[in-house]
Amino acid sequence: MLVPEVEETAEDIAEMEIRGAATIAAAAADALAAQAEASDAETPAEFREEMRSAARHLRDTRPTAVSLPNALRYVLREMEGETVSELRATAVDAAEAFEAQLDRAQDDLGEIGANRLRDGDTVMTHCHSTDALACVKAALDDGKHIEAIVKETRPRKQGHITAEQLREWGVPVTMVVDNAARRYLDDCDHVLVGADSIAADGSVINKIGTSMLAVAARERGTPIMVAAQTLKLHPDTLTGHTVEIEMRDETEVLSDEEREALGNPDVDNPAFDVTPPRYVDAIVTERGQFPPESIVTLMRELYGEGTTEPWAE
Amino acid sequence: MLVPEVEETAEDIAEMEIRGAATIAAAAADALAAQAEASDAETPAEFREEMRSAARHLRDTRPTAVSLPNALRYVLREMEGETVSELRATAVDAAEAFEAQLDRAQDDLGEIGANRLRDGDTVMTHCHSTDALACVKAALDDGKHIEAIVKETRPRKQGHITAEQLREWGVPVTMVVDNAARRYLDDCDHVLVGADSIAADGSVINKIGTSMLAVAARERGTPIMVAAQTLKLHPDTLTGHTVEIEMRDETEVLSDEEREALGNPDVDNPAFDVTPPRYVDAIVTERGQFPPESIVTLMRELYGEGTTEPWAE
Amino acid sequence: MLVPEVEETAEDIAEMEIRGAATIAAAAADALAAQAEASDAETPAEFREEMRSAARHLRDTRPTAVSLPNALRYVLREMEGETVSELRATAVDAAEAFEAQLDRAQDDLGEIGANRLRDGDTVMTHCHSTDALACVKAALDDGKHIEAIVKETRPRKQGHITAEQLREWGVPVTMVVDNAARRYLDDCDHVLVGADSIAADGSVINKIGTSMLAVAARERGTPIMVAAQTLKLHPDTLTGHTVEIEMRDETEVLSDEEREALGNPDVDNPAFDVTPPRYVDAIVTERGQFPPESIVTLMRELYGEGTTEPWAE
Amino acid sequence: MLVPEVEETAEDIAEMEIRGAATIAAAAADALAAQAEASDAETPAEFREEMRSAARHLRDTRPTAVSLPNALRYVLREMEGETVSELRATAVDAAEAFEAQLDRAQDDLGEIGANRLRDGDTVMTHCHSTDALACVKAALDDGKHIEAIVKETRPRKQGHITAEQLREWGVPVTMVVDNAARRYLDDCDHVLVGADSIAADGSVINKIGTSMLAVAARERGTPIMVAAQTLKLHPDTLTGHTVEIEMRDETEVLSDEEREALGNPDVDNPAFDVTPPRYVDAIVTERGQFPPESIVTLMRELYGEGTTEPWAE
Amino acid sequence: MLVPEVEETAEDIAEMEIRGAATIAAAAADALAAQAEASDAETPAEFREEMRSAARHLRDTRPTAVSLPNALRYVLREMEGETVSELRATAVDAAEAFEAQLDRAQDDLGEIGANRLRDGDTVMTHCHSTDALACVKAALDDGKHIEAIVKETRPRKQGHITAEQLREWGVPVTMVVDNAARRYLDDCDHVLVGADSIAADGSVINKIGTSMLAVAARERGTPIMVAAQTLKLHPDTLTGHTVEIEMRDETEVLSDEEREALGNPDVDNPAFDVTPPRYVDAIVTERGQFPPESIVTLMRELYGEGTTEPWAE
Amino acid sequence: MLVPEVEETAEDIAEMEIRGAATIAAAAADALAAQAEASDAETPAEFREEMRSAARHLRDTRPTAVSLPNALRYVLREMEGETVSELRATAVDAAEAFEAQLDRAQDDLGEIGANRLRDGDTVMTHCHSTDALACVKAALDDGKHIEAIVKETRPRKQGHITAEQLREWGVPVTMVVDNAARRYLDDCDHVLVGADSIAADGSVINKIGTSMLAVAARERGTPIMVAAQTLKLHPDTLTGHTVEIEMRDETEVLSDEEREALGNPDVDNPAFDVTPPRYVDAIVTERGQFPPESIVTLMRELYGEGTTEPWAE
Repeated sequence: MLVPEVEETAEDIAEMEIRGAATIAAAAADALAAQAEASDAETPAEFREEMRSAARHLRDTRPTAVSLPNALRYVLREMEGETVSELRATAVDAAEAFEAQLDRAQDDLGEIGANRLRDGDTVMTHCHSTDALACVKAALDDGKHIEAIVKETRPRKQGHITAEQLREWGVPVTMVVDNAARRYLDDCDHVLVGADSIAADGSVINKIGTSMLAVAARERGTPIMVAAQTLKLHPDTLTGHTVEIEMRDETEVLSDEEREALGNPDVDNPAFDVTPPRYVDAIVTERGQFPPESIVTLMRELYGEGTTEPWAE
Repeated sequence: MLVPEVEETAEDIAEMEIRGAATIAAAAADALAAQAEASDAETPAEFREEMRSAARHLRDTRPTAVSLPNALRYVLREMEGETVSELRATAVDAAEAFEAQLDRAQDDLGEIGANRLRDGDTVMTHCHSTDALACVKAALDDGKHIEAIVKETRPRKQGHITAEQLREWGVPVTMVVDNAARRYLDDCDHVLVGADSIAADGSVINKIGTSMLAVAARERGTPIMVAAQTLKLHPDTLTGHTVEIEMRDETEVLSDEEREALGNPDVDNPAFDVTPPRYVDAIVTERGQFPPESIVTLMRELYGEGTTEPWAE
Repeated sequence: MLVPEVEETAEDIAEMEIRGAATIAAAAADALAAQAEASDAETPAEFREEMRSAARHLRDTRPTAVSLPNALRYVLREMEGETVSELRATAVDAAEAFEAQLDRAQDDLGEIGANRLRDGDTVMTHCHSTDALACVKAALDDGKHIEAIVKETRPRKQGHITAEQLREWGVPVTMVVDNAARRYLDDCDHVLVGADSIAADGSVINKIGTSMLAVAARERGTPIMVAAQTLKLHPDTLTGHTVEIEMRDETEVLSDEEREALGNPDVDNPAFDVTPPRYVDAIVTERGQFPPESIVTLMRELYGEGTTEPWAE
Repeated sequence: MLVPEVEETAEDIAEMEIRGAATIAAAAADALAAQAEASDAETPAEFREEMRSAARHLRDTRPTAVSLPNALRYVLREMEGETVSELRATAVDAAEAFEAQLDRAQDDLGEIGANRLRDGDTVMTHCHSTDALACVKAALDDGKHIEAIVKETRPRKQGHITAEQLREWGVPVTMVVDNAARRYLDDCDHVLVGADSIAADGSVINKIGTSMLAVAARERGTPIMVAAQTLKLHPDTLTGHTVEIEMRDETEVLSDEEREALGNPDVDNPAFDVTPPRYVDAIVTERGQFPPESIVTLMRELYGEGTTEPWAE
Repeated sequence: MLVPEVEETAEDIAEMEIRGAATIAAAAADALAAQAEASDAETPAEFREEMRSAARHLRDTRPTAVSLPNALRYVLREMEGETVSELRATAVDAAEAFEAQLDRAQDDLGEIGANRLRDGDTVMTHCHSTDALACVKAALDDGKHIEAIVKETRPRKQGHITAEQLREWGVPVTMVVDNAARRYLDDCDHVLVGADSIAADGSVINKIGTSMLAVAARERGTPIMVAAQTLKLHPDTLTGHTVEIEMRDETEVLSDEEREALGNPDVDNPAFDVTPPRYVDAIVTERGQFPPESIVTLMRELYGEGTTEPWAE
Repeated sequence: MLVPEVEETAEDIAEMEIRGAATIAAAAADALAAQAEASDAETPAEFREEMRSAARHLRDTRPTAVSLPNALRYVLREMEGETVSELRATAVDAAEAFEAQLDRAQDDLGEIGANRLRDGDTVMTHCHSTDALACVKAALDDGKHIEAIVKETRPRKQGHITAEQLREWGVPVTMVVDNAARRYLDDCDHVLVGADSIAADGSVINKIGTSMLAVAARERGTPIMVAAQTLKLHPDTLTGHTVEIEMRDETEVLSDEEREALGNPDVDNPAFDVTPPRYVDAIVTERGQFPPESIVTLMRELYGEGTTEPWAE
């Protein structure tokens, strides 16, 4: 039986109340810990089955998010013992350890990314990425003056969250619509984005609009850096799997009324797109920065040559 | 004394109730005709001054719109006579002639553009352009099946108007956010846009976002056609003038409440951007199609080597 | 009643016994002259109808060849008079004048093209074009040493004709398969091709394979020159018409036996493809050389802004 | 003394009766096994010398084929023992083991490559590659519908073999001449080719014409995947050696009669060309897919930093 | 008999004491006027021959400079009359008229070019061009603040002259070596250069180094404008002639001592190079600005379709 | 107390009397050995402090040179023992071992690089790099004929040193100014340069002008190889640090007199620039050749994931 925290977390992830890969991963680990703590399972087998069931339930909310299954995998693999209480304790500990590691990763990544930013630089952002913001924060902490041009990022306008965070840190922000990006690229020293996931061929899967921004940035001579913890590396892509692009609710684009008024056009609302490695200058992770074409080496180092989904069984 | 029609037209143009270069030009001509008809001027000089004053008032609503001064110039130059009633009659006739010519131009342009569209083609549109739509309409009238992917075109979402018109004609439409354009370019046979104006160096000034779309279309191998009546050719650019880009109201991007909630970021809201000629395949006018690099020849043929603004004196 | 020469010429054109735009145009003019001479029409109207009928018959053999209708148009327009014998005489004269002009055009073009070739240059050719060869011949006549790398040009291997002609003139020739072109581009100073026709947007319609060669030449830094008499300019494209690409007999690619042995695959055998202007450095005509983007100016100078097909009525 | 199987295999490889890197490698291993079985050598030294001699004889048939020496190296290195019968047994076993491994490699590679192909995709092929075809076969086995545009691949028209195989599997095939490739790239979702060998700098050495196809595919926005077992990785290139390109028989291009008729032009018939890594999207091996720029890491993992040719001594 | 002024002017042009196309043209016109004034020819034929001889002598100093023959052509063509004194008067008048026109041309050009420069812009210059500087001057006169990054322009370091002039006008100047250009392109809003001559295909012949700067500017997204009076348009190129590139004295690169000390290497010192039109954004002339691809239209308008050298006979 | 050799070496490095990364590294090692040998320190602690002080003094001469700290690091880390005499002996041995390794590295690198050069090739060089020259020397030793086009490399004209060395080896050399590079790229088979350092993202930091040359080489289709010992890999860049570009003395560009005469312009004289990996074909090291995008793998193998500066404490 799944505890309410699992249901709630699943729902929040599904409805994008919980957003951002690391936040999702942490929430998923939390939910598993809550399930472990509240479980009234009587046998280890029952407990394990409950935990796997919770994991599957959480994972099904965003089947294309790569950090989510990685978080679930971590907790399930660390969970061990002969009794329910041992299993419970190890699962809770695993969730805590995972989150501690997550926090450190972002700080490390932020410092590495900040080294790329010079005093006085202007960055252009797309969507909202705490990894990307961590680079700006670390640069600010180093005493550098950083300015930002923030794309609003239709349809969900996550640029608002980015702008709010940057303003809180005192960063001068100029908000522009997505269509205005090319016009402002000449005024920027970096395009700085996060990633939903990174494929073995160095492609960056990120919020819809990233690839067009990257193509324009290359044309304008503005370097593009992607901030992404290694949690975002997608081991399935080692074996050629393409990353399935989630299609989100059409009402994010047109409300039902608008749609009817316009004569019921179709609506397509892909959540992400794919930026080929040749349009990316560097992928900044907590383990250093990499040209996108060599990220596969790091992926194989961390995950081996390919992998089955352990929790799926 | 300016008649109410002039004031109303000026206001409607300023607030974008009247939109689209040909519509603006026609409305401006209409307003001048109304001024001429309702004028109670007693001397020819007074009448002329009223007409010039009306023209200046209209022109000041959108100083960057190139069709507006061209329309005003046409009517003022055709207006002639020794008496108020002669001046009135010629001005009214000129406005009618101008509009007749305008209507024909779009039809002619539409047929030329339609020749580029083959049966079964899919076009991607940006913003709302009656010139661009005229090409689709003429293709439909030729019995061709055309489909459309319509970018919503933030911030004003003129894509809604485009979608509505296309749906009315029975065209299958898929609405996407601007950020999704690159992902759908492979499914399109043409990018089809209008133009706010065309510069002597072949640059296309059009709704913000056009240049990024054009860069992405070139990268994807999708040809880009611009539908623009010769009314859009900008003679000032022959003498090196750059086209001033109108900055529109910031509340189109962020409402005052949103802005305050985000910590009062700056907002930049340019109405247009500039697409270099190397990203455009053809400019379709009512006088034939042209590579953008040779449009200067047509411009010099129509307007001479450079020109002062006749109505300004 | 059509005379045998018309039938034979039509057949020879259809079966590519007669090949090359100028040769086709001359043959068509000849055929019309033969028709005029041999006609037993009794009234001027009957004579005219016969001539138009002959023209239509000839034109239908290669509806996509642009020089053919231009030749027919020339003769028909020059033909005038009140009596059959007057009509006959003017038609025969027109055919002769047309051919004289044709011959001069190629010589003039050849000298202009030769000016681009320096002593010691190597050219890469595709297909067989007498316009292109005229440039080489004029360069040889100027005492320049020219070498050639000749692509065989599947499926019809017109490269054999080119090689034979060049060998006859003493030019060192290396024959390569089409697939080898990129490897040899670094050894070439020019890509030199003819054109089937030239569109108003500066696109070059030429033997299938030209566009891939041009793309590769741009990537390798080898300039590409197109030799094409103004006879090849396609006035229909001024009004947006795309050039219809002839699909040739599938047995040029696979014999019926081969095809059956391979499990009956489909076969596509387009005769031409379209090279965008941005991959062409210069179009050499008998009236000077032009960047492809400005050829529209010459086209409008020669043919006006657009045209109906006069002979079609 | 070399046994007839060695002579025959060598001849078949030389005359391209045996074609495709894995097939050549397997045939070479087979031939060595046959030599081992039929040898009447009386001393181990004599036996070893015979085997090395056979290896050299086989290798000399295609000095530029990288899989051939790798196969020979494998068998020779595994061959060990104190007596002729021990040497014979280990050599025969090694040849069998090598082939088993070869078979598995292609299946694994096929499944990885198939993951890149989506239901409904069209691939364009060049030459004949069993590695490339294995990707299509695995996709078909997954129930995906795949169509193919097959380039005939002059001069030897290996596209016929590819078409025949695909038709046998029920794949809809359209055969085109090599020159038509760019025109059909827009209709394709992938360019799918094999490789003769892969260099340390990520360059792909493959059938002549591959590089021009890859350049055109990049220009058209069509991704290019290379299917190549790790057997094709060329360790010599780690130390900067360029891959020598085999020049094949000139009569493949022009028969002696044709050549004489054309005035005896030179003929160049390179078997392969070199595609720079920037025109390749992914190299699919049996150990996963790699961006071409990171293949050097796999090469060093498998073969160390550089190597002498063990069998040559 | 040539007068000393002709000899001196010829020498000064040859030794680059007189530099810059307009200055050379004016000096040549002056010299012809001096010859006319000082001539002691007794017959009109003698006078004419002296003038032609002076023209040939002047022209031979810089056979590749296009403005020089244009100036000579102008004066010789305007010279007319039945008597020596009539010829003398018309020649002197022609020289004056030519220079007046020259001066106006640069002012007109400057104003047109200045319209492309916005307040606060930074331009990068190469070599020294009074046409280019006229654009900056006109912008300064409009009250705009302009800054400059000046390339020194080896081997003759004409950048020093440019820097000196700009400093005199109060323009903040940063001098850099030619090698540093790409690093500073991101800080520039325009590359602004002159031209030695402009070819019919839109190529710009200018001081050696221009083409590499233009390629880098395109890569960095910095627009490149060429300021060139129509005097620089090279009518010979209409007929395919390539512009011969002058090779200047090798001691400009290495002194004889340096050369011997280095083991007597060869030295190549071309004065100019050729920038293809695709790397140029606009050519600014006194008759308006043009995309390079359409300059051929202006050239044909001014000079007809091709021309023999009238003065040469 | 620092011995004179340390002071002299420091001075020579600072004034570029000692030039080239390996030479600097060897000189630094030598200087440390001299310090060790001449030291009159009485305690091990005193000796160690002296050595660290010498290291810091040497390092401060060129804080941006990556080989210098690597050399110092090597000697300091190998220095060990309980007594002054033990420390002295190990330090001297370490310096010798380091230099022996350095010499071998360049020979190995040279042979690998030479494998890329074919008989008859022409290379274009920029600046002076013994690593680059080692490739040419090894090719010459293999009996290949190599020619060179040598850029003079303003402001310090290190091309003179390159030319002198090549002439000594009998290589035909053509010296050109930097501005002439693009014009001669078509005559070159390789651009061959060294590196000041290599960053983790594959960027090549080398003498100012390298990046513009590389961009032009890519445009012309000429491959660019970088010869750089692994000593040049910059481990700091793994953690995102950008490489600080040394600004050299302004009088290298303009003497004080020149500057004053020109109205005191600013002068910028950066020593190096950054070439993005996409413009480099191969980086040749003594451990093999690498695509620039995979150099990060070698860097992590040699130096771990990031590192503090051991000698700095």
